[in-house]
Amino acid sequence: MERGRFITFEGGEGTGKSTQARRLAQALRDRGINVVETREPGGSPAAELIRKIILSGAAEPFGPVAETMLFFSARDDHLTTVIRPALERGDWVICDRFIDSTRAYQERAGKVKSDLIRSLERTVIGETWPDVTFILDIDPETGLERARGETGGGPDRFEDADIEYHKKIRTAFRAIARSEPGRCVLINARKPADDVAQTVWNEVSLRYDLDDEDD
Amino acid sequence: MERGRFITFEGGEGTGKSTQARRLAQALRDRGINVVETREPGGSPAAELIRKIILSGAAEPFGPVAETMLFFSARDDHLTTVIRPALERGDWVICDRFIDSTRAYQERAGKVKSDLIRSLERTVIGETWPDVTFILDIDPETGLERARGETGGGPDRFEDADIEYHKKIRTAFRAIARSEPGRCVLINARKPADDVAQTVWNEVSLRYDLDDEDD
Repeated sequence: MERGRFITFEGGEGTGKSTQARRLAQALRDRGINVVETREPGGSPAAELIRKIILSGAAEPFGPVAETMLFFSARDDHLTTVIRPALERGDWVICDRFIDSTRAYQERAGKVKSDLIRSLERTVIGETWPDVTFILDIDPETGLERARGETGGGPDRFEDADIEYHKKIRTAFRAIARSEPGRCVLINARKPADDVAQTVWNEVSLRYDLDDEDD
Repeated sequence: MERGRFITFEGGEGTGKSTQARRLAQALRDRGINVVETREPGGSPAAELIRKIILSGAAEPFGPVAETMLFFSARDDHLTTVIRPALERGDWVICDRFIDSTRAYQERAGKVKSDLIRSLERTVIGETWPDVTFILDIDPETGLERARGETGGGPDRFEDADIEYHKKIRTAFRAIARSEPGRCVLINARKPADDVAQTVWNEVSLRYDLDDEDD
């Protein structure tokens, strides 16, 4: 049994990560591939509980280090109970946000020391790094406008920050893309969703030699 | 300015850690040494918040890895805001529970992987290891009876476990003491508190060449 592929989507608010993750999953299923769609923070029962705590802001008084460690403990559970078992049985895993969000939000834009993040990466992620990461890039003004239109509700904790903060996040994601060009693919997310989906598909089908059927 | 000394007290429930920490602090103050008395989990405002969450059992659904990470994030705050500043200004720090409790409860008696604990030790504790650790040893039956008498109230989460669990904890602490004989001093805590205090003082005054005044 060949190990499945692990693909992540990353980027700021309103970049269309969830839409693109869903479209790629569908395109892969159309080729007969079993796909597990998941997300972070969360993705497993214990991790979803932690997600709720973090996004509510209830863990904020604990400080950024505690928040980072909560993210990694959620990730540990998610990897152990969902991602690794799926990859081992040959399924592909598509995850909406993963480690690069921690690097962008907590490490680069936040004040959490890099050596703590590296250390947690080594022990929690270990060998289970994404094979490909699509980093969807958009100017924060457009992204936030889209995000607000999408949810229709009030902003959650990570959306409710000023534009300067979101600019930092964008810069962080772009820097991550530059620093790991083998794994990361930076994509212009201002383009129409169909174009973005086509770019994603081209990259995946090229890397894994999938038949490019007409669709 | 000479860096202060960092002394920790460890052991199971009802071993008299808090009493002995207080007595050593007093004996040091009697010799003109500035002492900061503190405890874990907790010891700083953010860490005390995390302590409350952990001891209430509210973090239990997150699983043992999350709990361990919460302990370490509390420890990070405690080290950064209380312990290191005290040691740097030359004060001595006496802490009721520290890293060896994590090793005993989460690593040896729990199911948290050693490499995660080692990794967090390296990044969170770094160079700030205790100079001396007194491990107070008692049979769990006696310890639990004492602990219940002391508090007079209901047991907290870590006291409310069966006797087999507490035996594991005792074994874990004894193994830690054996594995680091330079730092750890194992003490028979069934002896009267005065005798234990004298043993602690003998060790400290010998190591740091303090005058042994009559008292």
